[in-house]
Amino acid sequence: MIFLKLVVQKYGGSSLASIERIKKITEKIVKTVKNGKKLIVVVSAMGKTTDKLVFLARRLSEKPNPRELDMLLSCGEQISAALLSIYLDRIGMKAVSLNAFQARILTTSDFNSARIKDIDDRKLRSLAFHNDVLLVTGFQGINENDELTTLGRGGSDTSAVAIAAKLGTICEIYSDVAGIYTTDPRIFPQAKKLSYITYDEMLEFSALGARVLHSRSVEIAKKYSVPIYCASSFSNEEGTWVMGKLPEWLERPVVTGATIEKNQVKVSVYSLKNSKATADVFRELAEKGFNVDMISLVSNSGDINLSFTIVESNSVDVQKAMRDLDCEIKITGGFSKVSIIGLGMKYQRGVAAKFFEVLRKKNIEPEMITTSEIKISCLVHEDKAEDLLKELCQVFGL
Amino acid sequence: MIFLKLVVQKYGGSSLASIERIKKITEKIVKTVKNGKKLIVVVSAMGKTTDKLVFLARRLSEKPNPRELDMLLSCGEQISAALLSIYLDRIGMKAVSLNAFQARILTTSDFNSARIKDIDDRKLRSLAFHNDVLLVTGFQGINENDELTTLGRGGSDTSAVAIAAKLGTICEIYSDVAGIYTTDPRIFPQAKKLSYITYDEMLEFSALGARVLHSRSVEIAKKYSVPIYCASSFSNEEGTWVMGKLPEWLERPVVTGATIEKNQVKVSVYSLKNSKATADVFRELAEKGFNVDMISLVSNSGDINLSFTIVESNSVDVQKAMRDLDCEIKITGGFSKVSIIGLGMKYQRGVAAKFFEVLRKKNIEPEMITTSEIKISCLVHEDKAEDLLKELCQVFGL
Repeated sequence: MIFLKLVVQKYGGSSLASIERIKKITEKIVKTVKNGKKLIVVVSAMGKTTDKLVFLARRLSEKPNPRELDMLLSCGEQISAALLSIYLDRIGMKAVSLNAFQARILTTSDFNSARIKDIDDRKLRSLAFHNDVLLVTGFQGINENDELTTLGRGGSDTSAVAIAAKLGTICEIYSDVAGIYTTDPRIFPQAKKLSYITYDEMLEFSALGARVLHSRSVEIAKKYSVPIYCASSFSNEEGTWVMGKLPEWLERPVVTGATIEKNQVKVSVYSLKNSKATADVFRELAEKGFNVDMISLVSNSGDINLSFTIVESNSVDVQKAMRDLDCEIKITGGFSKVSIIGLGMKYQRGVAAKFFEVLRKKNIEPEMITTSEIKISCLVHEDKAEDLLKELCQVFGL
Repeated sequence: MIFLKLVVQKYGGSSLASIERIKKITEKIVKTVKNGKKLIVVVSAMGKTTDKLVFLARRLSEKPNPRELDMLLSCGEQISAALLSIYLDRIGMKAVSLNAFQARILTTSDFNSARIKDIDDRKLRSLAFHNDVLLVTGFQGINENDELTTLGRGGSDTSAVAIAAKLGTICEIYSDVAGIYTTDPRIFPQAKKLSYITYDEMLEFSALGARVLHSRSVEIAKKYSVPIYCASSFSNEEGTWVMGKLPEWLERPVVTGATIEKNQVKVSVYSLKNSKATADVFRELAEKGFNVDMISLVSNSGDINLSFTIVESNSVDVQKAMRDLDCEIKITGGFSKVSIIGLGMKYQRGVAAKFFEVLRKKNIEPEMITTSEIKISCLVHEDKAEDLLKELCQVFGL
């Protein structure tokens, strides 16, 4: 096998939203090639293309056939791959675009939420050898019957990291966000950009709505130790490395970041007789496909007190789904979830105490609190949430 | 092999131009399925999609890389196939969309103007057996390296007829035109719709710009004896059959139709020394990819008088191409070509005489006249052309 200096880069939809932006991102691509690298560029669909295609499909059917929806949606990335390739060719690069058939990105048959099973790295290596840049359609794959599948929203990150994993290279993710920040700068303008973050911390960030990286892509990166570099498509500003371990010389902060997730609904369940009844609740919800987030359960000599959160858009359906169960429920909306995340919480005590001190000082009554090894999440009324986040950022120096 | 009552239908871009139209054309599809048929529906891109994609590509490159352009353009048909499939699924039909990879439409590698080499009819038959309707993307194919190709503008007709040829079925072509007319009804409103027309007549019609059927599709239909039925997508009005032979009982008209082709340019070549020099002219033009239409040559004892027509958009390039040849040329624009076509001309004399009589009566000076077995074409000044066409329609009862 010939040794190629391969790099995988991924460009998000907003970086490809217009002809001008498509031209602009090639600056980074050309620079990488001029540095002697062979490039595999994974692209998302241009701007709002996927939304527009979904909108067309919904006008024809409330629940579009999943296989056919994937046939439809996969066109978005093929259009941006071809356009980018046309421009690279125009400016003298040897560029070839590949869709999921051509790159042989094999997935499961779960239309709309397929998982990558394998990628033909020999074909990619051979094509990379003969060209400067391969443009590969993100977000999509094919199953064993050559049917098109898609990986779910944000799946292009997953495509890029999976290709990098298979080729043993790093993965650069470029978007309109210049890296990973300690918290959302729109809420807390003093938020700092992180130079490094671990996979585990990033997984909590993604799940909590930081939305810079699709969480499945981070899982794959973690599994195969793929270093991810997140940065801006249009500037040369330093971005953020997502890795397994922070560099040794780095002073490890206790709390790495804070997040806020809005539109949370709290479901409280009463009169549950035993743990079998509790299991029934979650089995019922899982079977109907609902995502349950925070779960809090306290049992006092047979008196089970269960609460969990769901997203607002599911609340009517969850109410229906639980109608057949032998329990009383109460659904209350208007909450936000505020969380702090940090690998350092594993090693340093007193973080929870500090957190409660902030709540007391701000006179905020928490509706629910859950914790993991590297995270504390707190459900509060939405009109208190931003204030809490800002105070937490102050206290933990974010 | 199981016997299936297979029918191929093709719907043009304007019949798929909106969500409402997509819903509307399914009426014909459902009716065909309810009549016990298995349907293969070949689709074009929605409305002006292909033009829009070409426009995007041109903003990135004056001459987009042909391979990449085909990657781009093939998305148009995939979108319409998926959308139509989504709606058919919604109204209870078993429908599956297939792109060129999935239908295994193998072509040559001539990007932008590929020719179909083979189609996997076993796969189509097997899928047709298990479904009500297969939606197949027209206009595209794959070469032996699994690269996407396209067949050139209007290529969806070719896809449909090629599939019908391979499966041994008839091919129904639906568009916003209700059939083949004796002449353009916009110019001569009394034009009649034909019930039948032969392949040879239709080939002359297509080449002369009647634009109802792509001429290559008629060539394939003729070669494999595929009956084509052209009719309106949205009405049940009788359309036109295009076949090898007219039915025996049909009274054969001498002239079947008349056409007009605008924007013609006449090239006159002087000082050609011999037939080698003439051959050089046409070889030069062919190598540069120009289409020469009418050719008229008269040689009087070594004095060669050559004229031919080209389309207006080529006139500057043709002038350049001929600069290196040892001859004088004169290029004059502002002409139209008016033709009458009819298989009956083979058997009945005096058609040319009638034609010249019309020219004399209308006081029109022809610039060039060429004839084939079933056609007479005449180049005239464009301001006389419509008048000539109308008079010819009157005289030949079109």
